[in-house]
Amino acid sequence: MAGLTVVNGIHREEHLRSSDFITDVVIGMSDGLTVPFALAAGLSGAVQSNGVVITAGIAEIVAGSIAMGLGGYLAGKTEQEHYQSELKREYDEVEDIPEEEKMEVKRVFAQYGINEHTQNIIADDLAKDKNKWVDFMMKYELGLEKPDADRAKKSAATIGLSYIIGGLIPLSAYFFTNTPYHGLLISALLTVICLFLFGYFKSKVTGQPPLKGAFKVTLIGITAAAAAYLVAKSFNNLF
Amino acid sequence: MAGLTVVNGIHREEHLRSSDFITDVVIGMSDGLTVPFALAAGLSGAVQSNGVVITAGIAEIVAGSIAMGLGGYLAGKTEQEHYQSELKREYDEVEDIPEEEKMEVKRVFAQYGINEHTQNIIADDLAKDKNKWVDFMMKYELGLEKPDADRAKKSAATIGLSYIIGGLIPLSAYFFTNTPYHGLLISALLTVICLFLFGYFKSKVTGQPPLKGAFKVTLIGITAAAAAYLVAKSFNNLF
Repeated sequence: MAGLTVVNGIHREEHLRSSDFITDVVIGMSDGLTVPFALAAGLSGAVQSNGVVITAGIAEIVAGSIAMGLGGYLAGKTEQEHYQSELKREYDEVEDIPEEEKMEVKRVFAQYGINEHTQNIIADDLAKDKNKWVDFMMKYELGLEKPDADRAKKSAATIGLSYIIGGLIPLSAYFFTNTPYHGLLISALLTVICLFLFGYFKSKVTGQPPLKGAFKVTLIGITAAAAAYLVAKSFNNLF
Repeated sequence: MAGLTVVNGIHREEHLRSSDFITDVVIGMSDGLTVPFALAAGLSGAVQSNGVVITAGIAEIVAGSIAMGLGGYLAGKTEQEHYQSELKREYDEVEDIPEEEKMEVKRVFAQYGINEHTQNIIADDLAKDKNKWVDFMMKYELGLEKPDADRAKKSAATIGLSYIIGGLIPLSAYFFTNTPYHGLLISALLTVICLFLFGYFKSKVTGQPPLKGAFKVTLIGITAAAAAYLVAKSFNNLF
């Protein structure tokens, strides 16, 4: 076990997940590479002009990046409000029904086979400092982490921008070709390479087996594009 | 504080988040109502035939539901593999470097102002049962919850299906109208009502202020659609 021979600080670091920024890039680019690619592929089987594919692709990238970015921003704000209201509630409870809250602390430890004597010591010790007691309840009873106030804004911008960059890659092929058929060929080639590289990199930073991850990500993109192509083609024949 | 007057069991329940199923429906439908609506709106300003809007909309719904559903499934599988590999690692560490792991337990409690004497009691108590010790480390040192084995499959199906249902609502307006202009009017009316109701319901089940939540969700949809419309219209003028 290589990880065990290193010093304590580094040993702990290795357990940590990748940074929030990387996570946001992965979220945005993952969908950005997949959905606009599959939409353009689907339309390629159904329309005669690259202009329509590009217009639809651009509309999708705008819609998707706003839905993901603004959606992520508002979700982040909601998470902060939720944390604040639960925090107020825990402070009220620690004030109004301290014995009940001590029982909840003991319950957390009872499930790990800690005996009642030790449970009492922990509960009494925690109760000495109300701020730390509430901190403990927020994290270990409710499982809530304090959200970073700036995170919602940064997260929204990163996810939205990554979606746009990811989406422009498959779409770019339709700018430089004359028919949707040729556009699709180049777009598929380009996107499969990018999905594979992206899947590899994504798995690396999240600590997964990189080749397996690369195949998974590529599989999602190809499946979505093939299904969109087949369904759009048969739907178009109905009109 | 109404919540404090009830008995213990119910008091605890109120803190809990909504079920996994509801969460998945919300994830799928939230994007399903927004992105296909915005894409169709964007194309309405740029093309002359409802057939193109419908074909693009269907392609988007297929692509989006597969990307979200299959993406969610594979993410769930990855989460399980990650949990298993970290679990094995913790078991190895508890076996190979028990003193180091005891230090990590004490560190968890040190940050809550628990004194060293109590820290030692807890660490020694936990160390008596290796399974519970590892359980504790997984949850409180690493913040990892044991993933439900069936959840990935169920989650994928629920998210994908909710995306399809959500996406067909805005698109349905183009089936029953003759021009993209009329389709857009009906689609916008229908979707704004659905977004508002959906936002209200979503906020109710997640314990947020429902009216505020309804306005937020509706705002995202309208912003995405308006931006897609403007960008697609100006892009289309270039071709």
